Amino acid sequence: MRTTIDLNCDMGESFGVYKLGYDDDVIKLISSVNIACGFHGGDHNIMNHTVAMAKKYGVGVGAHPGFLDLHGFGRRNIDVGREDLMNSIIYQIGALYMFCQKHDVELRHVKPHGNMNNMADKNKEMAVNIVDAIRAVDKNLPILVKPNSQLHLVAKDKGLPFVLELFADRAYNDDISLVSRKYEGAVISDPEKVAKRVIKMVTEKKITTINGEEIEVDGESICVHGDTPTALDMIRIIKERLEGIGVKIAPLSVN
Amino acid sequence: MRTTIDLNCDMGESFGVYKLGYDDDVIKLISSVNIACGFHGGDHNIMNHTVAMAKKYGVGVGAHPGFLDLHGFGRRNIDVGREDLMNSIIYQIGALYMFCQKHDVELRHVKPHGNMNNMADKNKEMAVNIVDAIRAVDKNLPILVKPNSQLHLVAKDKGLPFVLELFADRAYNDDISLVSRKYEGAVISDPEKVAKRVIKMVTEKKITTINGEEIEVDGESICVHGDTPTALDMIRIIKERLEGIGVKIAPLSVN
Amino acid sequence: MRTTIDLNCDMGESFGVYKLGYDDDVIKLISSVNIACGFHGGDHNIMNHTVAMAKKYGVGVGAHPGFLDLHGFGRRNIDVGREDLMNSIIYQIGALYMFCQKHDVELRHVKPHGNMNNMADKNKEMAVNIVDAIRAVDKNLPILVKPNSQLHLVAKDKGLPFVLELFADRAYNDDISLVSRKYEGAVISDPEKVAKRVIKMVTEKKITTINGEEIEVDGESICVHGDTPTALDMIRIIKERLEGIGVKIAPLSVN
Amino acid sequence: MRTTIDLNCDMGESFGVYKLGYDDDVIKLISSVNIACGFHGGDHNIMNHTVAMAKKYGVGVGAHPGFLDLHGFGRRNIDVGREDLMNSIIYQIGALYMFCQKHDVELRHVKPHGNMNNMADKNKEMAVNIVDAIRAVDKNLPILVKPNSQLHLVAKDKGLPFVLELFADRAYNDDISLVSRKYEGAVISDPEKVAKRVIKMVTEKKITTINGEEIEVDGESICVHGDTPTALDMIRIIKERLEGIGVKIAPLSVN
Repeated sequence: MRTTIDLNCDMGESFGVYKLGYDDDVIKLISSVNIACGFHGGDHNIMNHTVAMAKKYGVGVGAHPGFLDLHGFGRRNIDVGREDLMNSIIYQIGALYMFCQKHDVELRHVKPHGNMNNMADKNKEMAVNIVDAIRAVDKNLPILVKPNSQLHLVAKDKGLPFVLELFADRAYNDDISLVSRKYEGAVISDPEKVAKRVIKMVTEKKITTINGEEIEVDGESICVHGDTPTALDMIRIIKERLEGIGVKIAPLSVN
Repeated sequence: MRTTIDLNCDMGESFGVYKLGYDDDVIKLISSVNIACGFHGGDHNIMNHTVAMAKKYGVGVGAHPGFLDLHGFGRRNIDVGREDLMNSIIYQIGALYMFCQKHDVELRHVKPHGNMNNMADKNKEMAVNIVDAIRAVDKNLPILVKPNSQLHLVAKDKGLPFVLELFADRAYNDDISLVSRKYEGAVISDPEKVAKRVIKMVTEKKITTINGEEIEVDGESICVHGDTPTALDMIRIIKERLEGIGVKIAPLSVN
Repeated sequence: MRTTIDLNCDMGESFGVYKLGYDDDVIKLISSVNIACGFHGGDHNIMNHTVAMAKKYGVGVGAHPGFLDLHGFGRRNIDVGREDLMNSIIYQIGALYMFCQKHDVELRHVKPHGNMNNMADKNKEMAVNIVDAIRAVDKNLPILVKPNSQLHLVAKDKGLPFVLELFADRAYNDDISLVSRKYEGAVISDPEKVAKRVIKMVTEKKITTINGEEIEVDGESICVHGDTPTALDMIRIIKERLEGIGVKIAPLSVN
Repeated sequence: MRTTIDLNCDMGESFGVYKLGYDDDVIKLISSVNIACGFHGGDHNIMNHTVAMAKKYGVGVGAHPGFLDLHGFGRRNIDVGREDLMNSIIYQIGALYMFCQKHDVELRHVKPHGNMNNMADKNKEMAVNIVDAIRAVDKNLPILVKPNSQLHLVAKDKGLPFVLELFADRAYNDDISLVSRKYEGAVISDPEKVAKRVIKMVTEKKITTINGEEIEVDGESICVHGDTPTALDMIRIIKERLEGIGVKIAPLSVN
């Protein structure tokens, strides 16, 4: 069993006067943040603030690049060509990197946001473009990927370090893909049930799929959400239960 | 007299389908580019392209951060607070830096754009914020400044490396400030006249002011414009005249 | 004394996934809304929703145009030329007008937002530009103005209908200008105190200034805020107290 | 044969300092403009200018709404839901309408831009959303449609007035759909050849398809382009040839 696990959470998605999420509370409970970089959400001020907080609480910083679509919050499919997609990711990584530089913390990973991620899970070409974008600037910068996704396979194939990410509150199909939100049971809302699943992921390295199968998968980072008070409570319970059995919540180690 | 001089030009200010300037021609004639970073103009694609061209032609790359005002092209006064201004500059420098990283070229300088620059010339508080922003990420990254401007004085005072910049086609007051465009004679349009002034700047380290005074000033970089065919011709003549007397056009040396 | 009074509130300032204010509760308590038009805040979806709610609750609809500055929420000084300012206002009024058309409600007034309003209070040229913009599309569309502001004087001078607006929770100087937020006592936070001031405004048509003077002013619309739970409570109390003495809260009548 | 024909052209797609197209020349040669409304291109200033020019030259004004995607110029597929799409179109129509109001000209038609149009040609749901958006604000406002496109069929079905639009310089398949730009011969660049095709469209109401078939189709408006000097020349020749055989170029009549 794992004795440490990373909890990651998307963060820094506010914009100007618009506030999103309970960042200041969540950051005390987790070990890695995926910080929005100003394209789908986030701006230079919240980026600076979030990196500062991450430093303060010893939380690992990752870039969370998204589509250039503030109005759609990066949650719409947009057909972006290879060059455009690569450059948009490099731009966003760079912007965040400079705040890491300012606060003297390391940029530890990249996790594409929303539909940039979802599309690349299934679209090999997009996965290649994303992986190539990261490799173009840092061949050792890990990407968070869903097991068996195109992003996973392409990162593996191209030799980009990757971190297998599991979702605390989502149901899984037998092929370790997420059950679509269109189906009942796709999202698990009972915190205790979620905590139990997380503990199984960490201690047994197993997921029980929606069909009742037990699948082995060694997730190195568990994704949690911090955008509602309920979500915040769920993180608290996950953290408590994990620590209760002696599992330490710790950032991804930098290679 | 100087045996080398830097010619700098703002560049990479296109956006999406919108094209601005004769970048691909200009870059062959100059030695430093100030590349827009996506706030007042420019986008990730043109940034990538411009850095690639700069590498190809051995031109020094600088960041050209502006106000977050695409519609106004950064040419309007906006009152931006210290944190907001600093973070916006850090963000833009970072975005450009990552394209330098990708193309394996150095980021050599920063030159604020448009009214961010104009306001900071006279407003000490803004000058401090800009200089502090650069120092927060790299204490050795030079800033291009107008002689005697607040940006100049503050950079000097804070120990940030600076490069004195003169304008090829602008008339100067006796205090080495630019004659306001509101007054006749502020902009010099005759290329030969401009070339003669540039040669005087380089060989004698002197400017003849609008009042006929000869003022000593050791400009290390001469700013030229490349946004019209006429402007492009002017650069060609300046370059020819300089090389005709044996002055080499070369990028700023990195400390 | 007045037997009816208009309570107006800025609304529809959300954007995409970003939510701002307690619009759905506030709209049941007031009689006029100033709807953001997508430049400083708001978008086409929230505009549609807000106009639909206004119709449902019999609330008068006004346009709330602001500077094209989503990141600064229209709260920064921007120097916008006459044509640019006029056109930006016409554009925003038109966008909102079409949602009024869709829902078959009237567009009853215009109230400039944030610093567009604040600047025009003191800057006659800007006030002229704003008044001319409205007159260019509808000479009978009233503007909400602060008593004695440049917007007030210019509207009067040019014959544009205007509505004198008072602020429920703000202290006033003897010249009926607002006490700057820089000074203590500028904002009154005790709901009962605020309600008493509103009742005095309505029943006696008087304000007690920060210096203790009693000034006569016949405000036709009282501005309230709905962006926090506390602000919402304050509206509830104002409404209760007004109705308790028989004052009806009703939209501005259309000429 | 037709004795009059409408020539329409997309226009007003500049943004801020960025200029696109030869609008001021083109507008003298055509009879209808589709004016960008600020989402994919265009801004309030160019909208005002373009409506003013249209009035001056007696050219019919239409709205040219696009996706909210300035960076992609509305030429990317974006999956926008029904409400979002409808509201975005209503917003844009309204913005343009108010400039028509200012200049006292009529808003005569709507033509969706770029990929909003292309997607709706084949996607019935999108076509329904677009047609419903127009009907929601004006049941008599005609839409320009490609013959046999979903937009055509849905407009017909819902009773929204429509105008059949043909493209001067594009090859057609036998089902009167455009030959994809992916295939050779999709775009016809010889001005005389194009002019001959236009004359056939007008005088015989026929198109020769890429397979050599002659298909009857009564196009009421011919789309031309004005974004390059070559395109401008092509319009001049089309106009000359049409007028040479006595066909008048005239705006769509308003019902």
